[in-house]
Amino acid sequence: MILAERMQRVKGSEIRSVGKKIAARNSADLIKLSAGIPDEALFPAEELKAATLPLFDEPLLPSLQYGLTKGDTRLIHLIAERMKQAERMEIPEKNILITTGCQQGISLSSVALLDRGDVVLVEKPTYMDGLNASIPYECRFIGVETDDDGMVAEALETAQRTIPRVKMIYVIPNFQNPTGKAWPLKRRREFMDVVQKFPDLMVVEDNPYGELRFRGEFIPSLKSFDTLGQVIYLGSFSKVLSPGLRVAWVVAHDDLIEKLEILKEGFDLQSNQFAQSQVVNYLLQNDLTAHVEKLRAAYKEKCDTMLREIKRTFPPEAKVIEPDGGMFIWVSLPEYINTSDMLAEALDAGVSYIPGISFFADGRGTNGLRLNFTSNSCERIKLGIERLAGVVKKNIR
Amino acid sequence: MILAERMQRVKGSEIRSVGKKIAARNSADLIKLSAGIPDEALFPAEELKAATLPLFDEPLLPSLQYGLTKGDTRLIHLIAERMKQAERMEIPEKNILITTGCQQGISLSSVALLDRGDVVLVEKPTYMDGLNASIPYECRFIGVETDDDGMVAEALETAQRTIPRVKMIYVIPNFQNPTGKAWPLKRRREFMDVVQKFPDLMVVEDNPYGELRFRGEFIPSLKSFDTLGQVIYLGSFSKVLSPGLRVAWVVAHDDLIEKLEILKEGFDLQSNQFAQSQVVNYLLQNDLTAHVEKLRAAYKEKCDTMLREIKRTFPPEAKVIEPDGGMFIWVSLPEYINTSDMLAEALDAGVSYIPGISFFADGRGTNGLRLNFTSNSCERIKLGIERLAGVVKKNIR
Repeated sequence: MILAERMQRVKGSEIRSVGKKIAARNSADLIKLSAGIPDEALFPAEELKAATLPLFDEPLLPSLQYGLTKGDTRLIHLIAERMKQAERMEIPEKNILITTGCQQGISLSSVALLDRGDVVLVEKPTYMDGLNASIPYECRFIGVETDDDGMVAEALETAQRTIPRVKMIYVIPNFQNPTGKAWPLKRRREFMDVVQKFPDLMVVEDNPYGELRFRGEFIPSLKSFDTLGQVIYLGSFSKVLSPGLRVAWVVAHDDLIEKLEILKEGFDLQSNQFAQSQVVNYLLQNDLTAHVEKLRAAYKEKCDTMLREIKRTFPPEAKVIEPDGGMFIWVSLPEYINTSDMLAEALDAGVSYIPGISFFADGRGTNGLRLNFTSNSCERIKLGIERLAGVVKKNIR
Repeated sequence: MILAERMQRVKGSEIRSVGKKIAARNSADLIKLSAGIPDEALFPAEELKAATLPLFDEPLLPSLQYGLTKGDTRLIHLIAERMKQAERMEIPEKNILITTGCQQGISLSSVALLDRGDVVLVEKPTYMDGLNASIPYECRFIGVETDDDGMVAEALETAQRTIPRVKMIYVIPNFQNPTGKAWPLKRRREFMDVVQKFPDLMVVEDNPYGELRFRGEFIPSLKSFDTLGQVIYLGSFSKVLSPGLRVAWVVAHDDLIEKLEILKEGFDLQSNQFAQSQVVNYLLQNDLTAHVEKLRAAYKEKCDTMLREIKRTFPPEAKVIEPDGGMFIWVSLPEYINTSDMLAEALDAGVSYIPGISFFADGRGTNGLRLNFTSNSCERIKLGIERLAGVVKKNIR
């Protein structure tokens, strides 16, 4: 077997690989602050059951049959309505394509846009694992200066002017994975002003966490400022409803969305038809916003618990970003601490996290770590942070 | 926007495009012999409902949560058992990866294997639409001489020796789409003998229809003869259970299956977790073989009805391949008839089919057409064939 040349670059997910190491410990007592998953206790199981039952009684059983590559027409309609309500954007239904997770949106965008040697600009840090979708297309990732407000617009402009072959920017402006940061309105405007100076530049705006805001005001998406069709917007039901169903969508301008649909035919013909019907019925029978309010309240309590415990137990050298939503808290330790090395000690102490190096295009960030606050109870969060504090203290010089 | 260079070659599915044209007619009276779908009246809806209900009551609701990229461990175990029973192959569980349809198996194999300019050898005709998965990787398709028994082994050997850069062979040895042919045992052996002379050559064996045999004896898969790990085998529940669930799998040797799993992380992180659990419960609660027997009996009746009606109504110039299973019948008309042009007349007469050109790597086959016998009732099949016979007769010189 001779693999394609591109496979030399392809490597597994860092986070899933840490996950496997952690799973190998197989200890019920291990508190996984490394997870990147919603709280399953908050899945609306009864409502989803009620949404699912009628599917077996429909004439012609359309949810068990083949359907359209573009996705269930009713679902696309409901997503357009949801985007209007939750994101305050008017998106024509023809510009929406159903995908298998936001991950597939990154993947389709990469196939459509990236030639070998093209550059993808990313935040420092960013969700590099998602960008594994781009690696087979032999691009290069370059991190752009990122401050507390997100990617720095001036740095983006400099990068765009000085680095050859920049084709795409990948950003998560809402409660970013891993830092939890949300870009303020001013930064979004500045960013889009720069983007619009370069009409061939494309932006992938990954927004799986946007609805999980539990503090502060709504901030419009980058897509809202997109007058030239440069922004590919990725939305998902994974964090507000259920990730197991893998129902997500991509929004792109007219020419591109058709190309993405054609690519999806080749990728997997179409997404799961049954799951799309489940989401349709759920949305018709329930008020998703009311459910999201419950998630926000629960996640706020968990986030605040984690922040409080970090402040109480961590040494002052640890710097914490306090998020207004999402699923993650980012902690920076002194630069002499390598969080990849420290993980073994943490596991011994009964707690896990994702080491910072997983989130940097250039392999830096070895002193950072990502903590998840959604998947554990407040009690477990307290205990987990206490354990981790002990490990961190031992590593402070 | 500047698309990646590869996008110049990417084009939509011919079959789905014909499907859209046909759907645009929107006539309830149109008899769609163009479909490529199972009979929804035969979906085991009650059994699937019983398999689905318990999923909402499980502690921790694993089917609504994220899961493993490789797939649900229980499902992989059940697939290994199924392959033993139905395909008489012992496949280690580590060599199975769950995919979103067989289509994703073709796609993942293409990313892993194909460099720009590599050649994929195919049957004449073949399911070119599935191979849209390979086009973004800038390969070339070359058809190899194919007779009533499948791809001709000597022609394959000549092709392999004379054509530079042959990397992969794509074949559907069981009830092929579009011809319905099943390769006899002797041909499979001869084919694999040639393949094994070239250890770097890889074979994608697409087997979505294998279980739908309603006549003749079981014939072992190409994978059964694969001693050097050259065969990538694609299996699916789409045709035996439900295509809407999009649950399929790929079997590949140790090194490759790991690569495919890593690629899948980038493609869509993982397949629908809920659907995998549905299939697990269905398999635990039911005898799939008994269900498949029902499908076989029903499809045999439909196939025989269509064959009988073709013989009764078509002019003798029409040559028909009689299948022993699957979903399709292939009709060859005299070479002066262009079935792409004739489609408009057929639609006017209230019947549709897929023109032959869709299935040839080199744009030939303009005198062939594919008919589906699974999705319509025997009554509708009779009427559809009668209508089509009228159109064909008008076109005979």
